[in-house]
Amino acid sequence: MPVLVMKFGGTSVATLDRIRRVAKRVGVEVAKGYDVIVIVSAMSGETNKLVGFVNETSPLFDAREYDAVVSSGENVTAGLMALTLQEMDVPARSWQGWQVPVRTTSAHSAARIEEIPTENINAKFAEGMRVAVVAGFQGLSHEGRITTLGRGGSDTTAVAFAAAFGAERCDIYTDVDGVYTTDPRVSPKARKLEKIAFEEMLELASLGAKVLQTRSVELAMRYNVKLRVLSSFGEQSDDAGTLVCDEEEIMENRPVSGIAFSRDEAKMTLVSVADRPGIAAAIFGPLSDAGVNVDMIIQNIAEEGRTDMTFSCPTDQVLRAEKALTEAKTRGEINFNELIADKDTAKISAVGIGMRSQSGVAAKMFKTLSNEGINIKVIATSEIKISVLIDRKYMELAVQALHDAFELEKA
Amino acid sequence: MPVLVMKFGGTSVATLDRIRRVAKRVGVEVAKGYDVIVIVSAMSGETNKLVGFVNETSPLFDAREYDAVVSSGENVTAGLMALTLQEMDVPARSWQGWQVPVRTTSAHSAARIEEIPTENINAKFAEGMRVAVVAGFQGLSHEGRITTLGRGGSDTTAVAFAAAFGAERCDIYTDVDGVYTTDPRVSPKARKLEKIAFEEMLELASLGAKVLQTRSVELAMRYNVKLRVLSSFGEQSDDAGTLVCDEEEIMENRPVSGIAFSRDEAKMTLVSVADRPGIAAAIFGPLSDAGVNVDMIIQNIAEEGRTDMTFSCPTDQVLRAEKALTEAKTRGEINFNELIADKDTAKISAVGIGMRSQSGVAAKMFKTLSNEGINIKVIATSEIKISVLIDRKYMELAVQALHDAFELEKA
Repeated sequence: MPVLVMKFGGTSVATLDRIRRVAKRVGVEVAKGYDVIVIVSAMSGETNKLVGFVNETSPLFDAREYDAVVSSGENVTAGLMALTLQEMDVPARSWQGWQVPVRTTSAHSAARIEEIPTENINAKFAEGMRVAVVAGFQGLSHEGRITTLGRGGSDTTAVAFAAAFGAERCDIYTDVDGVYTTDPRVSPKARKLEKIAFEEMLELASLGAKVLQTRSVELAMRYNVKLRVLSSFGEQSDDAGTLVCDEEEIMENRPVSGIAFSRDEAKMTLVSVADRPGIAAAIFGPLSDAGVNVDMIIQNIAEEGRTDMTFSCPTDQVLRAEKALTEAKTRGEINFNELIADKDTAKISAVGIGMRSQSGVAAKMFKTLSNEGINIKVIATSEIKISVLIDRKYMELAVQALHDAFELEKA
Repeated sequence: MPVLVMKFGGTSVATLDRIRRVAKRVGVEVAKGYDVIVIVSAMSGETNKLVGFVNETSPLFDAREYDAVVSSGENVTAGLMALTLQEMDVPARSWQGWQVPVRTTSAHSAARIEEIPTENINAKFAEGMRVAVVAGFQGLSHEGRITTLGRGGSDTTAVAFAAAFGAERCDIYTDVDGVYTTDPRVSPKARKLEKIAFEEMLELASLGAKVLQTRSVELAMRYNVKLRVLSSFGEQSDDAGTLVCDEEEIMENRPVSGIAFSRDEAKMTLVSVADRPGIAAAIFGPLSDAGVNVDMIIQNIAEEGRTDMTFSCPTDQVLRAEKALTEAKTRGEINFNELIADKDTAKISAVGIGMRSQSGVAAKMFKTLSNEGINIKVIATSEIKISVLIDRKYMELAVQALHDAFELEKA
């Protein structure tokens, strides 16, 4: 029987009633003849509660213990979902990550899936089981310890299962009914997109649009997994939501498809770094080892053998970054006068595959921000996006102004 | 280094502050030179919450999914305890049941431990780790699924680890400071015992005194594990709490050591059962298969080939028992006119190894209850205990009257 992967996020399984509601949706697909793999997140709020416990217990925690604690929320939902399906007479059982096993790297809290053996689950499908409920976001390291894939990792779990099982489609059910030109909570003019290219989705995901985890989109693109984002609360139909697909399938050709933003972006500056070949590696190696997700990097022109190095990273990793850099300085690997952390910044990005063929997008973006009196602190560009760091207090204003400027409310 | 097992119940780890407090106690034993195995329960209330979820989702649940859901509470505490110890510079890590692995039978929700391999944990002790924090109450079945040992199973986990690792002692930290002549919440005259015989503890545990799980005492007796019950909140000293030990070590020789009770005991009667050889097996076989814990059994004298069969079981297993018996009737294995479930009963027991050598205990017990106008519904006796089922509303009265009658307040 064809396999369908359905992934439900935390708000979709926040209560037993909601679990019943989504179980009914699963039942509809089973009735159509699919063997279904359901990937579940923790009930809304649970993961945050557990992360809070860990942070309060140990600010610079052992990530192996963090993973052991934080992964428990998904296990609860998986069992409850299996029980709910059984109550509806749908043969189902739950799998925790280590039971499949979802084999991952040992990079705790940010592990990558290496392999998903299909034998165990396929054997149960062959015996008549119709739904395998899998706890998302978690896996098993080579050392036999529990790993997690990082926040939002359940999307990646879903796409990886879809790839491993050759699923017909991977449906990501969430609390929004698709991908929008920007977050409707920030701009009421935001419009839902019917389709979006993998590449665009990739930029939107990594830039904080939060609809899908970056790696899930990368995986879907690499293994050509048909990926659909839709609401668990809306109507169930075959053309609901937004389809994430190949560029060729997109008809529109506008320069910008969406405005993304990230509220929790810090700007860090190493002042007067002793410049020498290999200095970048000496700075960003320790940051990488400490698990800091560095995004933008800017190096000012060196003067008299010294330079300023600026980078951005999530606000909650600033402590970790400071510790890593201070230790590298103590070890004599790098030398700087001062480390300045500006935590009051936000990142705004314009994204669109049309940018490749249309010029003037950057100029229009800078002019729009300038007209609103918004100062740009850092600029970074790629083939299909332009990102800027600005004061956080201007974030909403900037998003709305850019949404208007690129006329994204028009279909 | 000598190994000590320390087990902390749900109220002892109910908050992060309490986890820190008990971690300090663990630290004291580490400082004395012990390698410590800490067995933890779920944070107080967590397991009940999860059990509530399962019951609401599926009243006659698949016990395999129940176990998968309910075991998650212990995993959270284990990780947090390991992190807390690490923050105190005590080398520690957590183990979930399947990681040790704690091998159990496949009797889900009531599994028995079959084997605890010591290699993994001993290898870490050899590397310098000082505390292994193990999630209690859970294990791994032959089929690779998570099992639980039943409520209170963490005590059994603790004793089994103490036996497997040849621990010097197994300290069960709980919210009471030892074993009492009865529950102090019911009788303010209740007195703490310094020592109690394994056999007595066994009866008290199985009769609902709730200080220790029955099987943990059985295990301790079989493997001669020195078992101590003490409070996580009191002073830490080597002679605190109550020592559960061999009969020979007990100096007192009173007929009754304690009055136990169980509030949630149902009396079930099969009216007019067709009597024939093997009828008891035909009734109690299906109940056992359905996981009903039958306690007392009484068969009335048969008349004209028919008899009444009465038994008691926990109130929350009544539905299960009714289903099992009705199905057995449908299959033609047994025949009865009516099945009456009396859920408003409680069990009261007088327990004491002195009973073996002193007569008149039963007579005194019945007279005391009679003086209070309490009707006895069922009587069952063993070598060292006398149990009766009575109306639940008289439970507290009966306990207090018996405590007085046997002068248990006197040391």
